[in-house]
Amino acid sequence: MRQLQTNDFLPLEVPVGVSGRHIHLCEEDFAALFGPGHELTVYRELGQPGEFAARETVTLVGPRGVLENVRILGPVRAHTQVEVAMTDSFRLGLKPPVRESGDHDGTPGIAVVGPAGAINLPRGVILAARHLHIEEELARSLHLHYDQLVQVWVPGIRGMILNNVVIRSGRLELHLDTDEANAALLSSGDKVKILRP
Amino acid sequence: MRQLQTNDFLPLEVPVGVSGRHIHLCEEDFAALFGPGHELTVYRELGQPGEFAARETVTLVGPRGVLENVRILGPVRAHTQVEVAMTDSFRLGLKPPVRESGDHDGTPGIAVVGPAGAINLPRGVILAARHLHIEEELARSLHLHYDQLVQVWVPGIRGMILNNVVIRSGRLELHLDTDEANAALLSSGDKVKILRP
Repeated sequence: MRQLQTNDFLPLEVPVGVSGRHIHLCEEDFAALFGPGHELTVYRELGQPGEFAARETVTLVGPRGVLENVRILGPVRAHTQVEVAMTDSFRLGLKPPVRESGDHDGTPGIAVVGPAGAINLPRGVILAARHLHIEEELARSLHLHYDQLVQVWVPGIRGMILNNVVIRSGRLELHLDTDEANAALLSSGDKVKILRP
Repeated sequence: MRQLQTNDFLPLEVPVGVSGRHIHLCEEDFAALFGPGHELTVYRELGQPGEFAARETVTLVGPRGVLENVRILGPVRAHTQVEVAMTDSFRLGLKPPVRESGDHDGTPGIAVVGPAGAINLPRGVILAARHLHIEEELARSLHLHYDQLVQVWVPGIRGMILNNVVIRSGRLELHLDTDEANAALLSSGDKVKILRP
């Protein structure tokens, strides 16, 4: 393959946001785990406006193993969803597929335990599909559109080109899970580039 | 970037070999951990001729955490070397660099514990640089040479192109660590392709 040139890239640098394993909870599941009347409290604001890591954590119990202190991301959502890295899934003993957020057909479930109780989540455990958030105006100026798949270039000794990165609305940020970030030696805030489609 | 065509690839499929965290031990360190006179016993033959996973395991103790049941790979070597994934390194509390086998300058050490004793390894913990083993004759026929860096193409929903894959002697196999394999949804035996240099 020929060497990449400046003109092969879109003219912007994209910051990386690494997502550790986490859970989104619906109102009903949150109440079952933490007790009625309890509210999520903000531990840290996230890159996307309005989203936050909560102080509250849960325990995930899979057929093979347990993950403790799994962070809840707020605010509450319409459906509970567990996002783990493949490394985590081996520890739990699950084989979740790569899915976009909210696409839960055929995904495994898991037991989730909080301080006030446990739930048997029937489905909703996924490996999150990597995606690139971008503001609407910026996307338009770059001739990108939502749901488009692009390629992302990562520099360095573990440099790579990631295929099938889906464009999503939001504040400019490439979301990777911990396996992807560690494979590419990336940390949150590192910069990558988009190959011109 | 234009779509890749058949002619962009070298005409062969390369099986993947995923390396979990492991340790290579020198004679002296092996004796200190398992007692004098003890011999490594074969648990499973590996892809490269003569190499094997041993029944014997050790415990790695880092400044932040512990990894138990870490497999020894045999036979014994001239220098002890610990190979972990970046995910493991966070659990241990170390920041090992990406290195080729045997290149230990400036790498961190770690405490290693076996059934007969412990050693304080002064250095030798690395993230293994991904590499592609290939037989001499096959390399020659493909106009590849040892130490050359090539790009490897991975198919699928988490498809990618891996840069900086170094060519090494041995039986045809792409060696990745667990972070790289999990990021690319690859398991041992899966097939990848080499981009024509």
